Amino acid sequence: MSYFTNVGKINYEGSQSMNPFAFKFYNPEEMVGGQTMEEHLRFGVAYWHTFTEDLSDPFGTGTALRPWEKFEGMDLAKARVEAAFEFFEKLNVPYFCFHDVDIAPEGSNLRESNQNLDTIVDMIKEYMKDSNTKLLWNTVNNFTHPRFVHGAASSNNADVFAYAAAKVKKGLEIGKELGSENYVFWGGREGYETLLNTDMKLELDNLGRFFQMAIDYAKEIGFNAQFLIEPKPKEPTTHQYDFDVASGYAFLQKYELHDHFKFNIEANHATLAGHTFEHELHYARVNNVLGSVDANQGHPLLGWDTDEFPTDLYSTTLAMYEIIKNGGLGRGGLNFDAKVRRGSFTPEDLFLAHIAGMDSFAVGFKVAKKLYDDRIFEDLINNRYGSFSSGIGKEIVEEKSNFHSLEKHALGLTEINQESGRLENIKSIMNQYLLKAYAGEK
Amino acid sequence: MSYFTNVGKINYEGSQSMNPFAFKFYNPEEMVGGQTMEEHLRFGVAYWHTFTEDLSDPFGTGTALRPWEKFEGMDLAKARVEAAFEFFEKLNVPYFCFHDVDIAPEGSNLRESNQNLDTIVDMIKEYMKDSNTKLLWNTVNNFTHPRFVHGAASSNNADVFAYAAAKVKKGLEIGKELGSENYVFWGGREGYETLLNTDMKLELDNLGRFFQMAIDYAKEIGFNAQFLIEPKPKEPTTHQYDFDVASGYAFLQKYELHDHFKFNIEANHATLAGHTFEHELHYARVNNVLGSVDANQGHPLLGWDTDEFPTDLYSTTLAMYEIIKNGGLGRGGLNFDAKVRRGSFTPEDLFLAHIAGMDSFAVGFKVAKKLYDDRIFEDLINNRYGSFSSGIGKEIVEEKSNFHSLEKHALGLTEINQESGRLENIKSIMNQYLLKAYAGEK
Amino acid sequence: MSYFTNVGKINYEGSQSMNPFAFKFYNPEEMVGGQTMEEHLRFGVAYWHTFTEDLSDPFGTGTALRPWEKFEGMDLAKARVEAAFEFFEKLNVPYFCFHDVDIAPEGSNLRESNQNLDTIVDMIKEYMKDSNTKLLWNTVNNFTHPRFVHGAASSNNADVFAYAAAKVKKGLEIGKELGSENYVFWGGREGYETLLNTDMKLELDNLGRFFQMAIDYAKEIGFNAQFLIEPKPKEPTTHQYDFDVASGYAFLQKYELHDHFKFNIEANHATLAGHTFEHELHYARVNNVLGSVDANQGHPLLGWDTDEFPTDLYSTTLAMYEIIKNGGLGRGGLNFDAKVRRGSFTPEDLFLAHIAGMDSFAVGFKVAKKLYDDRIFEDLINNRYGSFSSGIGKEIVEEKSNFHSLEKHALGLTEINQESGRLENIKSIMNQYLLKAYAGEK
Amino acid sequence: MSYFTNVGKINYEGSQSMNPFAFKFYNPEEMVGGQTMEEHLRFGVAYWHTFTEDLSDPFGTGTALRPWEKFEGMDLAKARVEAAFEFFEKLNVPYFCFHDVDIAPEGSNLRESNQNLDTIVDMIKEYMKDSNTKLLWNTVNNFTHPRFVHGAASSNNADVFAYAAAKVKKGLEIGKELGSENYVFWGGREGYETLLNTDMKLELDNLGRFFQMAIDYAKEIGFNAQFLIEPKPKEPTTHQYDFDVASGYAFLQKYELHDHFKFNIEANHATLAGHTFEHELHYARVNNVLGSVDANQGHPLLGWDTDEFPTDLYSTTLAMYEIIKNGGLGRGGLNFDAKVRRGSFTPEDLFLAHIAGMDSFAVGFKVAKKLYDDRIFEDLINNRYGSFSSGIGKEIVEEKSNFHSLEKHALGLTEINQESGRLENIKSIMNQYLLKAYAGEK
Repeated sequence: MSYFTNVGKINYEGSQSMNPFAFKFYNPEEMVGGQTMEEHLRFGVAYWHTFTEDLSDPFGTGTALRPWEKFEGMDLAKARVEAAFEFFEKLNVPYFCFHDVDIAPEGSNLRESNQNLDTIVDMIKEYMKDSNTKLLWNTVNNFTHPRFVHGAASSNNADVFAYAAAKVKKGLEIGKELGSENYVFWGGREGYETLLNTDMKLELDNLGRFFQMAIDYAKEIGFNAQFLIEPKPKEPTTHQYDFDVASGYAFLQKYELHDHFKFNIEANHATLAGHTFEHELHYARVNNVLGSVDANQGHPLLGWDTDEFPTDLYSTTLAMYEIIKNGGLGRGGLNFDAKVRRGSFTPEDLFLAHIAGMDSFAVGFKVAKKLYDDRIFEDLINNRYGSFSSGIGKEIVEEKSNFHSLEKHALGLTEINQESGRLENIKSIMNQYLLKAYAGEK
Repeated sequence: MSYFTNVGKINYEGSQSMNPFAFKFYNPEEMVGGQTMEEHLRFGVAYWHTFTEDLSDPFGTGTALRPWEKFEGMDLAKARVEAAFEFFEKLNVPYFCFHDVDIAPEGSNLRESNQNLDTIVDMIKEYMKDSNTKLLWNTVNNFTHPRFVHGAASSNNADVFAYAAAKVKKGLEIGKELGSENYVFWGGREGYETLLNTDMKLELDNLGRFFQMAIDYAKEIGFNAQFLIEPKPKEPTTHQYDFDVASGYAFLQKYELHDHFKFNIEANHATLAGHTFEHELHYARVNNVLGSVDANQGHPLLGWDTDEFPTDLYSTTLAMYEIIKNGGLGRGGLNFDAKVRRGSFTPEDLFLAHIAGMDSFAVGFKVAKKLYDDRIFEDLINNRYGSFSSGIGKEIVEEKSNFHSLEKHALGLTEINQESGRLENIKSIMNQYLLKAYAGEK
Repeated sequence: MSYFTNVGKINYEGSQSMNPFAFKFYNPEEMVGGQTMEEHLRFGVAYWHTFTEDLSDPFGTGTALRPWEKFEGMDLAKARVEAAFEFFEKLNVPYFCFHDVDIAPEGSNLRESNQNLDTIVDMIKEYMKDSNTKLLWNTVNNFTHPRFVHGAASSNNADVFAYAAAKVKKGLEIGKELGSENYVFWGGREGYETLLNTDMKLELDNLGRFFQMAIDYAKEIGFNAQFLIEPKPKEPTTHQYDFDVASGYAFLQKYELHDHFKFNIEANHATLAGHTFEHELHYARVNNVLGSVDANQGHPLLGWDTDEFPTDLYSTTLAMYEIIKNGGLGRGGLNFDAKVRRGSFTPEDLFLAHIAGMDSFAVGFKVAKKLYDDRIFEDLINNRYGSFSSGIGKEIVEEKSNFHSLEKHALGLTEINQESGRLENIKSIMNQYLLKAYAGEK
Repeated sequence: MSYFTNVGKINYEGSQSMNPFAFKFYNPEEMVGGQTMEEHLRFGVAYWHTFTEDLSDPFGTGTALRPWEKFEGMDLAKARVEAAFEFFEKLNVPYFCFHDVDIAPEGSNLRESNQNLDTIVDMIKEYMKDSNTKLLWNTVNNFTHPRFVHGAASSNNADVFAYAAAKVKKGLEIGKELGSENYVFWGGREGYETLLNTDMKLELDNLGRFFQMAIDYAKEIGFNAQFLIEPKPKEPTTHQYDFDVASGYAFLQKYELHDHFKFNIEANHATLAGHTFEHELHYARVNNVLGSVDANQGHPLLGWDTDEFPTDLYSTTLAMYEIIKNGGLGRGGLNFDAKVRRGSFTPEDLFLAHIAGMDSFAVGFKVAKKLYDDRIFEDLINNRYGSFSSGIGKEIVEEKSNFHSLEKHALGLTEINQESGRLENIKSIMNQYLLKAYAGEK
C-alpha cells in the first residue's frame, strides 16, 4: 500500500520547472569536484519529525494529517516503517535517524519495551535490505517519559540513572544491528531547573561515568560507530550541561573523554546559545571535533527551538564552507532535524519541506565550493595573517619568542601598519557568489 | 582638492567585473517597470555616519581615517561639506540626510550654534546648486549633549524642553531653506532609565505638545515637508517611547497627531524591538503611515544597534516588496543609516560599503518586482482568503453579520476544510526567485 | 470526597512558622489603609493551570499527579469542579477564571460542546452558591483546536471566523450566567507565521469587526462585564497582533473600540515583548486602560512563556505600586496565570505554589503601600518635574507657549541646571523599604 | 585638597537612618561566623569607572562632573590618584583595581607610556603606604587603542601581538611593584567580527602562546599573583573567545594552562552569555576555577553591558552563597566593575552607588550565610540525592557498575519513585530568609 498517493518519485528538473514536487537545485548525480552531489551531501531524514510528530505546540493540539495514524500501538509502529521507506525511496535520500521511542512504543516495563524494539528493528532491517537508505545515527529518548523529569544520567535518582543506562545499552545494540554510522547523545534533561536544589558536581561526575560506560559497552560488543554529543543550551530545562560545543568540549576534556566523542551540531541549538551555526561548526572543526550536523534553522526573533527546515542560503553556504574545510563530515551527515510548521499539515508538505531543505543545501554547497575553489576567503585570510610567516611573527608561531624579545620588538616600532578588514566588501562578494553560482558564471 | 584620491567615479559594470569600486547590480538608468532604477530607489547618504563618525565604540577610540579630520572647528565643518559633495558626485547618489550637529559645531550658546549652522547651510546650498544630490531629510540632534541627559521634549526640566524646541525651530527653517523633502524626529532620549523617578504621563503629554508646536511652526513658515517619527525601542535609554511603529501610532492617535506624521522605519530598530524589518514596513503600510526607510541591518545575535550596511538579500527583497505594495515611498527614500565596521576604517571603505548597500537593494528590488509582477504571493493570498469573497465571509466583511447569524452558520457546519499554509514551499519559491532574478530567467 | 487529603485549610501563621502549608505573609483580614488585605488583593486561581494542566512540555509528557484524572470525559469535568471548589475553599481564594474547554470537553460538534458546557456551568453555579469564590473572568479557548491553525477571528477561513464567534457568544452567555466581573480576549492564534501568505489588513479589519460584534452582543444580553484584551507578542505564532499594550491600544483607537476595552496584563507576556511588567502596567494606567493582571513571572533568560508563580518581590512590589496608583484594579484582579514547574508534580505543590504567589504579592503590596504612603517616589518625582509648575514650564503645560516663545527663552539661558537622577540611590532606598516593610519599621 | 567636599567619612548607621551617605546594612566590624564582615567581603573600587569614566554612551557625550577633570595629561593622572585615595579612605574600602591606561596616559610611544606609568605607580605606591586600601588586581588595556582594532594577542598583525605582550610585561611588573593579589586578562578584542576574514585556529594558538609567556615571565620576576581570565561573550566584538567560563575552561585545558588560571566572573558578562551570575560562579566553583568576582549587574532586557552597581538582593544572595560554598574567594575579591548611570553624574553619586553595592552585598551575605548555616539547601540537596549513598547508586558513584549491572537493576524495577522538586516552595523559603535575615529572626 501507499501512504503518499499524491506524490510520485521526486524529479530532478533543474531550474526549468516550478512544479513543487521536483528538486530545483539538488541533483544527486551531478558531479562536483570529482564526486557526485549525493556523496558530498549525506542527507538524513529525522524519523521523529517526519513519521511520529503530530505538530502540536504548547498552545495547540496536533494538526498533522498522516494516513498511518489510523493505526495504534505496534500496528502504528509498523505502518510508520512502511511509510518511512516509501518516503525514503520517493525522495531518494541516503540516510535516516531515529530515537528508540520513535520506532516502537514503550511497553509496560523495560523488558516489554525492548521486545517491541526487537520486533520493529527486525522489520527495519528487512526493509533496509531492499533500500538504498542507511542509518546515519540512532539514539534513545531519555527525556520524554516522566521518569526523566529530574534528568536521566544526571538524575538525582539512581534508579533513573540505571534505567537510562539500560536504554542506551539497548540503543547501542540496535545501532550495531542496523549498521549505524554514528550514535548520538542529546541530554535534553541533563541540566537543571534551579541551582537551589541541584548538585551540579555529582551530576557532571555521573554524566562522565555514564559516557565512559557507554564507550566500554560499545567496545565490548564491537559497535564502532562515531559517538556524538549534541549540544543545546536550554529547553526543556533552564540550563543544559552541553550548552554549546565549547562547554561540551570542556566537559569531555575534564573527564578524559575527548578522544571518543565528536559533536552533532544543530543550527537552531547554536542560535539559542547565542552563536551562529557557522561559529559552532568552525569551533568544532579547528578543535577536531566536528562530527555531524542537524540541518535545520531557527527564527532569530523567537526564543525557542523552532526546528524549521533550512532555507536560508547564507546559512547553508557558510555551513557547507566549514564542512568543505573539514574535508567533509566523514561518517557524519546532514540530518534534517526539522519539522514542518503546524500550518503545513498535509503529507505532501513533508516532501515539499525536504525538497526545500535539500535544494537549499545544494545551492549552499555549490556556492561554498566555488568560493573555496576560487580561494576568495582563503587568499584573503592568508594575506591578512601574513605577518606570522616571517620575522617576529614567525618567531611567535614557532614559540621562539618571549616577553623580553617581544618588548624589544615593540619598543622599536615607530608605527603599526593596519589594514582594513573590508567587512562590507566581503559580504558583497559573498552575495555576488551566491547569485553567480546559480547562473553558472565564472 | 580631493578627499578621495584613490576613488574615481563609480562605474556600473554589470556582473562582469570583480573590481570593488564598481556597482555589480545597481544601475541608475536601467528601466524597471516604466521607471529607471534611480527613480525607484531613492538612496540617501547619512552625513553623520559617513563624514562625522570616527568609528569609536564603547570599548575603543575612533579608528576612522578621514583626510578632512586634519581640520578643526568651522574649518572641519567646511571640509566635511567638500568631502560630502565629492562623495555624492562620485557615488552618483540622489539624496543625503543630516542632523544639525553633523554639519556644524555647537557654539558656546544657542545663538552661536545657529550662526555656525547658517554659515554651513549657506555653503551647502551653494554646493547643491551644482549637484544632483538633494536633501531627503534633515533633523536636529537632541540627544548627544549633556543637557539632554534626562530627555529633550520629555525632559523633567522646562529649560531643556525650550532649548529642544528652539533647535527644532531652527531645524525646520534649515529644512525649508534647503528644500528638504522630509523632517525626521528620533527621540533618542525621549524615554526613561527607571520608572521610579519618571512621570510618564507628563512626559508623553509634553511630547504631544511639542509635536503640535512643530506642526504649527512648519505651517507658519510654509515648510511642507513630510513629518516622520523614527521608532526605536531602547538604546540609549532603557525604554524609548516610540518603541516601534505600533506604539508610535498609538501615541499619534491619542494626541490627534496622526494626520500629520508618518514613520521613518529603520531595519535595525525593528529587530531591536523584536520585529522583522518587513513587519514594521507592512504594519505601517496597512495603516497608511509608511513614510521613509533607514536602510541598514543589525546582527540578530547582538543586542545593540550595529547600524550595518544592508547586505542581506532576503531583507532587501522583503523591504522592497512592501515598498512596491505601498506604491513607492512618495517623498521618502532609502537613507543608509549605516556605518562601516570599526575595522573598515579607510576612506575607500565608505565607497565599498555604500556600493554593497546599493547593490543589495538593487537585487532586492529586482527580485521583489518580479515576485510582484508574477503575482506569486498576490495570487496565493487572494486564493487563501477566498472565503471572504462570498457567502458568510462576504457578510462578515460587509458588516452584515452578527453573533446570531454567525452562530447559526457555525451550528450548521459539519466539517471545516482547512488548507495547508505551505510555509516551507513558499520560502523555497522565494529562493528560486532570488536566484532567478539575477540570472534573468522568466 | 476529597482530592487533597494531605492538605487542610491553609493557616495564616505570620512569620513564626516554616510549615509549608501556611501563609507566611498573606493574611486576608489584616487591615491595610482602611481595607482588608483580601479587599486589596483580589487573587484568582486559573482553572487551566491548576485543574486541567498535565505539565507536559515540548520534550516531555505530563508528570502531574492529579487524583481526579482517573475519570474521563464529562465525569472528569465534574470531578475537576469538585476538586476546584475544594481547592478554593482550603486556600480561601476570592476568585477563579476559566476558558470554556477547561471546564467541559468539546463534543463532536458545536451543539454538543455547548450542551457539555451547560451541564458543567449549572454545576459550577450550584457550587458557587455555597462558596465565597467568585468568577473574576471567563473566556473561550479559540487557539488549541486544529480548526484554529490559521487563526480564529483573524483566520483566512470565514467558517472559522463564524465558529470562533459562536464560541465567544456562548462565552458571553456563560459569563452572564455566572456573574463574571470581566471577559477576556487572548488572541493566541491572531497573528501570523509568515507575512508571505498573510493579508494583515483584512485580518485586522476582521478582528475589529469581531470585537464590535462581541460588544453588541454583550449589550444585547445585558452582560456588563469589563472587556479585557490580553497582549502577548509571540508564541504560539511568530507574531501576534496584540503584541503589547501599546500595539493593542493603537488597534483599539483605530477601530474606535477604546471606550469598551481595557487590558489584562500578564507579567511574562510583558517580558517576552521586551518590557518590564511594571512598564506595561504603568503605560496602561496613564492611558486609562489598566483592567486586570495575570500574576505570574517569566525567566529573564528563557525565550518562551514559562508562566511561573510569582516569587520575585521586586516585581510584585512594583506591580502593586502601579495598582495602588491606579486606585486599585476596579473589577479586575490578580489571576495566577501560572503553572507549577514540571518537577513540582504533586497535588500539594498546587497549594505551595499558590501560597508562594499570594505571599509574594502580600509582601509586594505592603512594601508598595508604605513607599506610597511615605511619598518616597511621589515627592521625588514632584520635585524632579518642579520646573513645569511655574514660568516657562507652566506655560508649556498650559499650552500657552510656541516655538517663538520657547526659542526666546532658550536664547536667554546662560546655563541649564541639571540635577542628578540618583538612580543607584533610588534602588537602594527600595531595598531598604523591602526589608523594612516586613520588619515593621517606620 | 579635597575632591569630595560634600562627603565626609561614610558612617555605619544601621537601619535607623535614611541619610544617603551612610551604610544601611554594611558594617565592616560586624562579626559574622568568626570573621568580620570586612574579611568576608573583599570589596574593590574599579579605578576606570570611578575616576576615569566620563559617562558618555554611544549616543551621548560625557555628563560626569569630576572636579579633577580640570587638569590635563600627567597632572590629571596625578589628580586622579589624589581623588582615588580620598575616595578609598572616606568609603573605607579594602581594595582597588586598575588597567594601565586608567592611571596614566599613553605617551607617543611605548617607552613614553611606560615612563608615565612609572611616575604614577611610584605615586600610588607612596599613597598606599598610608592607606588601608590594597591592590586587588591590575591589568592592561589592550582593547581601546586603534592598534587593537583587529585584536591584541589574537591580532592578525604580529607587531600588535608584540606590542600587547610588551604591555602585559609592564603590567606584571607593576603588579609586582604594588603587591597586587591577582592579575586579570580580559580579551575585549580577542574574538572576531566575521569568520569570513578570520583564522580562528591561529588566533587561539597565539592566545595560548601569549598566556604561556605571561606565566613564564611572572615566574621569572617572582610575581606570584593569581592569574584570572575574565569571560565575556561579545561586545565590543561580535564573538569573544572567552565567551563564558566553560569556553574559557575548554581553552585552558586544551592549551594545558588550567593549573595556572582561575576566572574573574562578572555578573553582567554572565547574563550577556545567557547564564545567571550564580551559574557561572557555581560552574567555576565545582571545577575549582572560581577566582574573583566583578560585582555588578545588567538589565535583563538590554543586550549590552550596562555595568550597573549591584542592587538586586537575589543576585547578591546567590552569589555570596556560591562564595561561601567555595570557602571564600581566597586572593580574589568583589570588584565593583560598575559605573553610575549617565544621569547620576555628580561626585556624590559615586559614593551613593558604592554604598548601594556594598549594602546589597552585605545583605546578600547575611542571607546566604544564614541559609547555609541553617543547612536549608544543603539538607534538601543531600536528601534529594540520597539514592547515590547506597545500593546501585553507591556502586555508580564508586564506579563499580557497568551497563550490564545497570540493565539488570533496571529490568528489576517495578516502579520508580520520584519526589517533587518543590521549586515554588524553595523560592518562597528564600524570600522568607531574605526578609528574616534583616529582621534578625531565627
